[in-house]
Amino acid sequence: MRIKNLLVFKVVIIIIFLVAVSCENKSEVVTEAKTTSEHPKLILTKQGVKDIRANIGQIPIFDKTLASTKKVVDAEISKGFDVPVPKDYSGGYTHETHKKNYVVMQKAGVLYQILDDAKYAKYVKDMLFEYAKQYPTWPIHPKPRSYARGKVFWQCLNDSNWLVYTSQAYDCIYNYLSEEERKTLETDLFKPFADYISKDNPQFFNRVHNHATWGNAAVGMIALAMDDDELLDRALNGVKVDNFNPDEKDNDGGYIRKDGQKIGFFANVDEPFSPDGYFTEGPYYQRYASYPFLIFAQAYQNIKPEQKVFSYKDSVLLKSVNALLNLTNAKGEFFLLNDAQKGMSYFNASLVSTVDIGYHFGGNNPELLSIAKMQNEVTLDDAGLAVALGIKEGKEKPFVKKSIELSDGANGDEGAVGILRSGNIELVFKYTAHGLSHGHFDKLSFALFEDGTEVIQDYGMSRFVNIEQKGGGNYLKENTTWSKQSIAHNTLVQNEKSQFKGKYDIGSKHHSNTYIFNVENENLQVASAKEENAYPGTKIHRTMVTIKDEDYVNPYVLDIMQVNSNSSNQYDLPFYFKGHIMQTNFDYNKLITPEILGNSDGYQHLYKEASSVVNGENIKLNWLLNNKFYTYSAVTFNKDEAILGRIGANDPDYNLRNEQTLILRKKNVKDALFVSTIESHGTYSPVSELAVNSYSNIDQIAVVYNSKEYTAVQINTKKGKQSIFIISNENASKKGKHSIEINKNTYQWIGPYYYSVIN
Amino acid sequence: MRIKNLLVFKVVIIIIFLVAVSCENKSEVVTEAKTTSEHPKLILTKQGVKDIRANIGQIPIFDKTLASTKKVVDAEISKGFDVPVPKDYSGGYTHETHKKNYVVMQKAGVLYQILDDAKYAKYVKDMLFEYAKQYPTWPIHPKPRSYARGKVFWQCLNDSNWLVYTSQAYDCIYNYLSEEERKTLETDLFKPFADYISKDNPQFFNRVHNHATWGNAAVGMIALAMDDDELLDRALNGVKVDNFNPDEKDNDGGYIRKDGQKIGFFANVDEPFSPDGYFTEGPYYQRYASYPFLIFAQAYQNIKPEQKVFSYKDSVLLKSVNALLNLTNAKGEFFLLNDAQKGMSYFNASLVSTVDIGYHFGGNNPELLSIAKMQNEVTLDDAGLAVALGIKEGKEKPFVKKSIELSDGANGDEGAVGILRSGNIELVFKYTAHGLSHGHFDKLSFALFEDGTEVIQDYGMSRFVNIEQKGGGNYLKENTTWSKQSIAHNTLVQNEKSQFKGKYDIGSKHHSNTYIFNVENENLQVASAKEENAYPGTKIHRTMVTIKDEDYVNPYVLDIMQVNSNSSNQYDLPFYFKGHIMQTNFDYNKLITPEILGNSDGYQHLYKEASSVVNGENIKLNWLLNNKFYTYSAVTFNKDEAILGRIGANDPDYNLRNEQTLILRKKNVKDALFVSTIESHGTYSPVSELAVNSYSNIDQIAVVYNSKEYTAVQINTKKGKQSIFIISNENASKKGKHSIEINKNTYQWIGPYYYSVIN
Repeated sequence: MRIKNLLVFKVVIIIIFLVAVSCENKSEVVTEAKTTSEHPKLILTKQGVKDIRANIGQIPIFDKTLASTKKVVDAEISKGFDVPVPKDYSGGYTHETHKKNYVVMQKAGVLYQILDDAKYAKYVKDMLFEYAKQYPTWPIHPKPRSYARGKVFWQCLNDSNWLVYTSQAYDCIYNYLSEEERKTLETDLFKPFADYISKDNPQFFNRVHNHATWGNAAVGMIALAMDDDELLDRALNGVKVDNFNPDEKDNDGGYIRKDGQKIGFFANVDEPFSPDGYFTEGPYYQRYASYPFLIFAQAYQNIKPEQKVFSYKDSVLLKSVNALLNLTNAKGEFFLLNDAQKGMSYFNASLVSTVDIGYHFGGNNPELLSIAKMQNEVTLDDAGLAVALGIKEGKEKPFVKKSIELSDGANGDEGAVGILRSGNIELVFKYTAHGLSHGHFDKLSFALFEDGTEVIQDYGMSRFVNIEQKGGGNYLKENTTWSKQSIAHNTLVQNEKSQFKGKYDIGSKHHSNTYIFNVENENLQVASAKEENAYPGTKIHRTMVTIKDEDYVNPYVLDIMQVNSNSSNQYDLPFYFKGHIMQTNFDYNKLITPEILGNSDGYQHLYKEASSVVNGENIKLNWLLNNKFYTYSAVTFNKDEAILGRIGANDPDYNLRNEQTLILRKKNVKDALFVSTIESHGTYSPVSELAVNSYSNIDQIAVVYNSKEYTAVQINTKKGKQSIFIISNENASKKGKHSIEINKNTYQWIGPYYYSVIN
Repeated sequence: MRIKNLLVFKVVIIIIFLVAVSCENKSEVVTEAKTTSEHPKLILTKQGVKDIRANIGQIPIFDKTLASTKKVVDAEISKGFDVPVPKDYSGGYTHETHKKNYVVMQKAGVLYQILDDAKYAKYVKDMLFEYAKQYPTWPIHPKPRSYARGKVFWQCLNDSNWLVYTSQAYDCIYNYLSEEERKTLETDLFKPFADYISKDNPQFFNRVHNHATWGNAAVGMIALAMDDDELLDRALNGVKVDNFNPDEKDNDGGYIRKDGQKIGFFANVDEPFSPDGYFTEGPYYQRYASYPFLIFAQAYQNIKPEQKVFSYKDSVLLKSVNALLNLTNAKGEFFLLNDAQKGMSYFNASLVSTVDIGYHFGGNNPELLSIAKMQNEVTLDDAGLAVALGIKEGKEKPFVKKSIELSDGANGDEGAVGILRSGNIELVFKYTAHGLSHGHFDKLSFALFEDGTEVIQDYGMSRFVNIEQKGGGNYLKENTTWSKQSIAHNTLVQNEKSQFKGKYDIGSKHHSNTYIFNVENENLQVASAKEENAYPGTKIHRTMVTIKDEDYVNPYVLDIMQVNSNSSNQYDLPFYFKGHIMQTNFDYNKLITPEILGNSDGYQHLYKEASSVVNGENIKLNWLLNNKFYTYSAVTFNKDEAILGRIGANDPDYNLRNEQTLILRKKNVKDALFVSTIESHGTYSPVSELAVNSYSNIDQIAVVYNSKEYTAVQINTKKGKQSIFIISNENASKKGKHSIEINKNTYQWIGPYYYSVIN
């Protein structure tokens, strides 16, 4: 086991001569192991500082970052600092001040190294001594909301953030301090600080969760900076405790830990990352966890290169960089999977580290340089230097995001996220595991983007991060009562109850399964998945297809959802289109005043504004968003109901966004088949006032065959073109030939699906 | 009178030697009068063509426009054209095809002249002959909605558009045609076409209205192209009719004509334009009318320079260019005054003409070049050449939009629009006349923009121009029942009835009046106006101030509305903030399901979502829009009511946008004083998740003095700064010293208002 090897490995001074590795695509930076007393060594290295100083003034993106960092830090130095007694939640003064302090200390430490100007070291030193003076006197933070309250902040999570940054600052000014000074800081501040977030809060530290990742990294970083093997062991293996309670949960309702579960840094790499580098909590939290994962890995690699942390689990940390970037839309914003705030993107500072570390330690992939160039910023360290040099030398290539399936689960066998990219369309189809405490009950849900604009939305989370006015910037109660519920997503809801009864315990035991993911043919990309546990006794099979056809301006989406149950149920399939309704082809009865749609499971937050009992013809909804025209066409069966709804009921504090949905409802049926298309077909200009192709291309879609084995859908355009898509509902991997007769025509094919223009 | 002079002026050939006028700021292009048989002469001139040909390839913006025009026309020529039998409303095939035809003909004519390639002339000729063949056989357009149905289109307005463009095409290929061919076109097509929109539709042609402007320009352009003096007289003076009905109205409810009103082109310049160049219908329609005004003026100037059309009414047509550009926000989008669709901007093609003509005929103002540069397009004629050369020579200067008051009314004495610009804030305050049939009942309303984003919105119109799905792209019934009503605006509504009883007849008789407009001090800009007719017996006086103070990040707005009535009333003051509510400082009772707010005058379209009886303290509404934090603070009096409402009731076709409002309501009072501030004070980044200055700077605002003569408001910041603003409610032009005592302090000043930091 690697950890034992590490402990055995007690040689203090080892010089491994630098081996230049120049493999084009996947070289690993082999770092020289240092004397442990040589500083800086965590993120900046002595050699790195030397190289940076040699290149300054000739590496534009680095120089620019350096200048803006200097400006920020100089302004702070001239203002002076404050170390207030902790009091507030996020958004409040003491919270924001301590947060600013660690950010500025880290930057000042770096400036001290690069610019060799003692004023920066002094600033860090003075602030650290102020912390060292006050920290021992502070009680547990007065705000009670967290399951693991910090001392500087209301939760240990933020205390860990502080230590991750401050460790770097300490490493940078290490040699500026006297041994006596170091001893004071380590004894009065760093060790008790590390103990508090680990020993004193095992419910926080001993987890597999992004909280613990921060905690592990924090303790690990300060351990490496102080050469403290005991703390390093704790970071890697967790803290030993006797009284472990397997039923304990955190504030988000997530379990603290499963019995017997491994803990510590590597456990946090092992479990949440799939072999593809997908992080089970989703990209919003991967972005957040990415920094401690990679910054600690970088430090660990720099100081203990023989441990080859970046090769761990088939280089999963490096793969995660690629996975994370692939989980963004055309604007670089993360897809909304599980708890996630809209607008978060690869322009976030933690992604600058992610990209730079990924480049420097992951074989200098030139595509990463194009992302770094857009970020227009690099880290002020060895990795950032490598990126700056790469850009300067014009090595960058476009980062091309293709259709991709990213498996979920430690072994990659717990479902996946399927992303279909075709033209300007990005379809995100979710058939993953639950995603720990940040998971939503939204198996087989999807979202659709065009040019980076959400067209069919995932609501995201009910939280305004760091906006104190909204519940202290923390999760709002509507996150539980609305955002996590199934009806808040574009997926099936049975009998107005959320999947897995809306229970984390149940949801966490299951995952959906990939049925097909085939994107070989750019014009016909298919993602298909099955969910058999969300509603016991009911099997759901959804197939999403993007079809590129010359008769359509843009690729369109075909969506087939097959539901089979052994009991009669009501099925609701919501469709959260964004934009303004232009037209429907069905008459609806608009209520004089809206009614609340239901009592629980999120339904209590939806207003019913209008409804219609449809007659078995296709229904069409035509809308305008962002000066583009879209149409949703759906096959209906007699007595299906279409409900036009709006989010916002039972929302006393205006926490929710009052956005629309169309719900297709089938009552009292065992089996159900939902088939629909989504087209982006036209444009509008408010400047020329010209509407182009404002109507759907499609005349009719029809289910022409439906059995246990096969489902066939025919799509007729207004121009008279007819095409057919057939999916084999069972046994996707069947080797032989499929053959069925539909309307006296025989269709034969090999593979799990068939598509052809038939007229 | 100028028109008589014109008719006397019968000399056919006059050569006035070109006089080069090189006055820096206000030169007028003196054009050589041409032989009337020399073509082209309307927009392109023979000399212009020569100059263009000489410069081609060396004038980038012109070359670019030429290349893209050529691409469009070549594509059309290779596709071939269609002249379908008229059938559809706008958005439909025949409408859009005829529209495309005139646009392409005009371009092809220009290309023929510039590129000297006969294929373009042939294309125009063939299409014109097809029209000449069919036009005489067409009945009146089958769609019945217009008060003046066209033949090619559903309304004479669009037929006039056709003729304005086609006259230019005809002028360009005039010399390509044989005399016989010209005779055929003129006899079978142009003369009957001109007769139909004038003689046969005097209710359309004999008006003062943008419709008539198009009609007059159309007949005038073809008259100039054909040298037809009788038609030119008709364009300038209207058509003689005997059976004039003064009670007749158009589809928008506007009167056709007042008895005894002058008609024809110059009457349309005289009446709607104020001496400042403000067009009474508002900028959206000015943009639309601008093209026929200026294109006809250009042709008239080119052919009859001795008439000095651009000098008419103290150069009002040239002033209108400047006025129109000043009526745009930071993004170049027109302010929403009266009927107006959001998003229309100076990037509209008609503004390219407007800017180029304004530059060429208005003294080569270098600021216009910077607008032309942003438009990245010029007209392919003499004016466009002048602009292209100006840009090439680097003459452009920034077009700086300052605070400005633009008077309304033919004589500039019917109120005004006051625009206060301070920092990134633009405040549009409306105290105009009614604005003809496109007017809204919104005296003393305002809107607020920051960086071109609407913060406090004017709803605009209920229409989706050219989007057939929405009522054929025409005005929707909600435009009358909602958009025009007072409650749809940020202004006072008495007893839930619109101003002027919501009646056009009454509204058209009155206008508000400027009381103060003083923007000399950039840090303290004041616009104040009075309205005494909207509700008989009630006087309304609103004062809007922008204040720049170092304690605030951005300038803030102080709004004081004084209402005095001789009867007890209910007063509602709505506040249409855009964005998401973060927090209010008052408790409100959110209804389980929304209720409809009222029965008529637009109230039937508002849902009441929540309400609060406030206690006389300041109320505060803090919201987030476009990642900026705003706060509205308002003085309240005991038992005032705050209503949170949403647009969308009684909207069976989802024609309305479901946006929010806060209504401050005072019941059963004769006099009322509404005082509030609007601050833009903070920012949020979803990428860094940092909220900066998310709360209001203001601790309290208080009315510290209020009499018939003076109102004083004190504003205290959270940092303890106190300032006072005093307005003299009567006699703004008083020369002597004002003096009042407030809380034992004596304030003395000269002028209609006073502002000072007092502590």
